[in-house]
Amino acid sequence: MKKIKNNTAHWKIKLHEIIYEADTKAGKLFDIILLFAIFTSVLLVMLESVEEINQNYATQLNVAEWFITILFTIEYILRIISIDKPSKYIFSFYGSIDFLSTIPKYLALYFTGTHSLVALRALRLLRVFRILKLARFIGASNNLLKALKASKAKIAVFLFFVVILCVILGTVMYMIEGAENGFTSIPRSVYWAIVTMTTVGYGDIAPHTPFGQFIASIIMILGYGIIAIPTGIVSSEMTKANTVHTNTQSCQNCAIEGHKDDAEYCYHCGDKLNG
Amino acid sequence: MKKIKNNTAHWKIKLHEIIYEADTKAGKLFDIILLFAIFTSVLLVMLESVEEINQNYATQLNVAEWFITILFTIEYILRIISIDKPSKYIFSFYGSIDFLSTIPKYLALYFTGTHSLVALRALRLLRVFRILKLARFIGASNNLLKALKASKAKIAVFLFFVVILCVILGTVMYMIEGAENGFTSIPRSVYWAIVTMTTVGYGDIAPHTPFGQFIASIIMILGYGIIAIPTGIVSSEMTKANTVHTNTQSCQNCAIEGHKDDAEYCYHCGDKLNG
Amino acid sequence: MKKIKNNTAHWKIKLHEIIYEADTKAGKLFDIILLFAIFTSVLLVMLESVEEINQNYATQLNVAEWFITILFTIEYILRIISIDKPSKYIFSFYGSIDFLSTIPKYLALYFTGTHSLVALRALRLLRVFRILKLARFIGASNNLLKALKASKAKIAVFLFFVVILCVILGTVMYMIEGAENGFTSIPRSVYWAIVTMTTVGYGDIAPHTPFGQFIASIIMILGYGIIAIPTGIVSSEMTKANTVHTNTQSCQNCAIEGHKDDAEYCYHCGDKLNG
Amino acid sequence: MKKIKNNTAHWKIKLHEIIYEADTKAGKLFDIILLFAIFTSVLLVMLESVEEINQNYATQLNVAEWFITILFTIEYILRIISIDKPSKYIFSFYGSIDFLSTIPKYLALYFTGTHSLVALRALRLLRVFRILKLARFIGASNNLLKALKASKAKIAVFLFFVVILCVILGTVMYMIEGAENGFTSIPRSVYWAIVTMTTVGYGDIAPHTPFGQFIASIIMILGYGIIAIPTGIVSSEMTKANTVHTNTQSCQNCAIEGHKDDAEYCYHCGDKLNG
Repeated sequence: MKKIKNNTAHWKIKLHEIIYEADTKAGKLFDIILLFAIFTSVLLVMLESVEEINQNYATQLNVAEWFITILFTIEYILRIISIDKPSKYIFSFYGSIDFLSTIPKYLALYFTGTHSLVALRALRLLRVFRILKLARFIGASNNLLKALKASKAKIAVFLFFVVILCVILGTVMYMIEGAENGFTSIPRSVYWAIVTMTTVGYGDIAPHTPFGQFIASIIMILGYGIIAIPTGIVSSEMTKANTVHTNTQSCQNCAIEGHKDDAEYCYHCGDKLNG
Repeated sequence: MKKIKNNTAHWKIKLHEIIYEADTKAGKLFDIILLFAIFTSVLLVMLESVEEINQNYATQLNVAEWFITILFTIEYILRIISIDKPSKYIFSFYGSIDFLSTIPKYLALYFTGTHSLVALRALRLLRVFRILKLARFIGASNNLLKALKASKAKIAVFLFFVVILCVILGTVMYMIEGAENGFTSIPRSVYWAIVTMTTVGYGDIAPHTPFGQFIASIIMILGYGIIAIPTGIVSSEMTKANTVHTNTQSCQNCAIEGHKDDAEYCYHCGDKLNG
Repeated sequence: MKKIKNNTAHWKIKLHEIIYEADTKAGKLFDIILLFAIFTSVLLVMLESVEEINQNYATQLNVAEWFITILFTIEYILRIISIDKPSKYIFSFYGSIDFLSTIPKYLALYFTGTHSLVALRALRLLRVFRILKLARFIGASNNLLKALKASKAKIAVFLFFVVILCVILGTVMYMIEGAENGFTSIPRSVYWAIVTMTTVGYGDIAPHTPFGQFIASIIMILGYGIIAIPTGIVSSEMTKANTVHTNTQSCQNCAIEGHKDDAEYCYHCGDKLNG
Repeated sequence: MKKIKNNTAHWKIKLHEIIYEADTKAGKLFDIILLFAIFTSVLLVMLESVEEINQNYATQLNVAEWFITILFTIEYILRIISIDKPSKYIFSFYGSIDFLSTIPKYLALYFTGTHSLVALRALRLLRVFRILKLARFIGASNNLLKALKASKAKIAVFLFFVVILCVILGTVMYMIEGAENGFTSIPRSVYWAIVTMTTVGYGDIAPHTPFGQFIASIIMILGYGIIAIPTGIVSSEMTKANTVHTNTQSCQNCAIEGHKDDAEYCYHCGDKLNG
């Protein structure tokens, strides 16, 4: 009995390695097939949403979708049985997405109207980042990620500032322009302020009164100017990340690191360093 | 008599601490409640401005608004009585905003048409920055603020330059395109030039003549190019702010400088530094 | 005779100082008055271009404009007589602008239709930069100007590259979308490509075919990505300009400058430097 | 026989030098004439695409185009006969473009409808970069090219990230807004997401439901924020490229490094450096 159990465990470990890791050849192959399947599934959802294509190739699309759905179902089941604590996967971020992108196709058999939820499959594209992170792009974007992590707080303060500013300016524009010029409510005016501040500028709502256009001009110039802030933050963080100290000498006495390049004595214990 | 006065003073000091400062537990709690009240009040103003919501929930919104208004009134009175020189608060920037965001609801009882001024309450969002500055984000945005302060003059020169350029180019476009193509007046053309230069591009006004489109193309490419200027300014200031060496300690034995911030021994002669 | 000539010369020198320089008190006052006159003249031209204002205040605007025109005429004459070689001023860039912004008002007396040329007065705003450069903003924007000058060639190459790219992509879109979707000619398509690449996006011309929208998406992402180039250029130049060597020590033997901060011997002649 | 062959070879080498290189005077002249011919040919194609010009100057344009076509044909033939392995040129990138930009005019003689392919001539503009690279701008854009090459991988990761994000957000918006608000299919919604994320904002498709506008606002603020990433990448790479220390000379007496590029004597011990 014990032997069989061990065998099963071994089989589970092997499967876990293939599905959850990317170090082995089989693991890499699995990732590539998964990537391919995800891209195909998204392409199918896209094509299906185009009226003409959907009408002419309904059967083919349906077959292809069922094929992908069954593939995803198998993957989902394998992921559950190959992990020690299935609940850890099931209720994780990626686990939820995997579930949400597989279930709508089955639901559509019993409930009409739920088929459009198949589009949720696009969320699986997020796994692309996970797969690629484990693979080759890690080197290229490592410094980038470090810089982004370092500037997260500053960027958050900045975006919060932009949103608050848009709420205030949107409200002001609602009072100036009013419903007759398309600024029918404050949320809509705030939406307009965001459209303007971020220099998107749809033009679906635009100020008509001279004073409104004057305030709009100020918002635009503000938006044009303050885009320099996030850019400046990331630029300086990246520059910092690039110039990070590469001196790896460590003191033989206290083992501390981070000495100056021309240091002759340890800054922590005063011991002589061997150059 | 004196004792009572002292008691009052003590009570005033306590209140001042709670309302104007954020160091004590009560002060922090007050700030959090105030933040919550401000966000609620802005949300109410927003909801009320949406026609359908306003018609269906008029009573509820009115009750909630009166609740907030009374809260703000109490806060306003407390701020006045807890400060030594009330006029200093009343005529300050934040004092005026607090007044302007509280009074319209009362005015609306006697004057019809003044109710829309309630939207001025959005200005209270500015206090968010004040509250947050005193609290936790100070660290994250400190370097940022320093860099922005250092680049203020340059950014001002730049924005002034952009505005002047827009006035000139707007006038030129008014002469090229004329009223029949939507450039009905110079101010409107300048507005268009700002919309274009800042890459917002509503499309409510757009050049129709080939020559006008040629000039517009130049404005766009200019705008696309000169956005590099504010960005460059802030980037370099942030890089500077990050790399500034603030450690001025020098070794008492060999007088060498440039020690690490946490150095305890001189890196050059190994002598003990006095912290 | 000589004495009179000397007197005249002295008077000319004084006038030259006031008009062309900004070092003396009178020169500064002249500049401030001129700035004020230029802003007023531009404001007048703007107001006049607004139909309603022009109809209601025609007389007042006309009087004010004649006042400014006479002021500018006097300034123009004074500039000519106070300079040694009048032709040098008359045919200079600013001289031409001064002439072009003064003459239309006189021409309008004899020729109908030339009045709109009064708007050329906006070009005088360019003198604002000249006046301000001589005055106080020189400090703030000095580094900025240095960085811009250093990155001029690179920015030019970049903008040239963008234009070429827009010509190619505009032509491609003309072939894909064609006249029936608004891409009526190649110049118009190139105009659209510039509008898109620079992220202005009026929406007056927009792709309708799926393939056209696909190409447009690529152009947009390109435009979104390559805006990083001019920004990167200016940022790095500004960072460089900020970190420029400020060590002003010069060798006593060979007088060469630019020594390293910790140099003990001249890098050029090997002579001992005195620290 | 051999002598003749040698002569031919010599003639071929000379021609190769003129056409493929830019070091000799004749080679430079050839490049300038070619540049001029390319710009003229693109201008002709542009003018021809404008309905009115094409109708009024059909003959002149046709003559000019035949002139350019024959010129390009001669160049094409000369390029083939002057190179040792013609197939290397014919199937190269530039060889294909040269062929594609010359052949349509001949095809138009036999097949109607192929004339519009003449516009492919715009692709020859790409050769402009090749010619200019060999000539004078190499210095100005050298650092730029280095920085761009170094940040290629990071920028690619970033753009890939943007595209994936647009696919996900476009799909979400398709589900929120639906066909009745202009989001008729997922590809179209993804197109809209790209238009919005890159802050182009045509306005041909715009969200109408409050929730859709809310999601759109998030996309805009995201797009406004993440434009900082490519900018930061290029900025830091350019800063790095500018500050890289390439002088590795060390003093033979005291072995100190970090000499100035033009140093003749050691800055530390005053010893003569060997150049």
